[in-house]
Amino acid sequence: MIKSKFGAKLKSLRQQRGISQEQFALSIDMDRTYYASVENGKHNISLINIEKIASGLNISLKELFDGV
Amino acid sequence: MIKSKFGAKLKSLRQQRGISQEQFALSIDMDRTYYASVENGKHNISLINIEKIASGLNISLKELFDGV
Repeated sequence: MIKSKFGAKLKSLRQQRGISQEQFALSIDMDRTYYASVENGKHNISLINIEKIASGLNISLKELFDGV
Repeated sequence: MIKSKFGAKLKSLRQQRGISQEQFALSIDMDRTYYASVENGKHNISLINIEKIASGLNISLKELFDGV
């Protein structure tokens, strides 16, 4: 459940910025298929990668988890 | 860095509630030594365990990451 809620939030934040999964994964030096699996709610992502994503989106962890 | 910041926040939230590491780990069905390693910033905790901790503290993920 939490994995899909987190992935959906990620997807909306990324799409708000008009960037593709590939562009975003590249920008934070994350493997594209791994990133896609996180967005699809398939991966139990770790804290360090969560922080990488938040800083790539230029938001705080608090904002990233707002509503999740 | 993020691991120790998250661990410190966790410790303060737990101590505010006056419960020991052992009591809290038991209450969320988490291994005590694993929980201690997370509080000590030694473990790169996963999303599912982060959510377990937030619900054990009765707070949202957003509140858990406030200031981290």
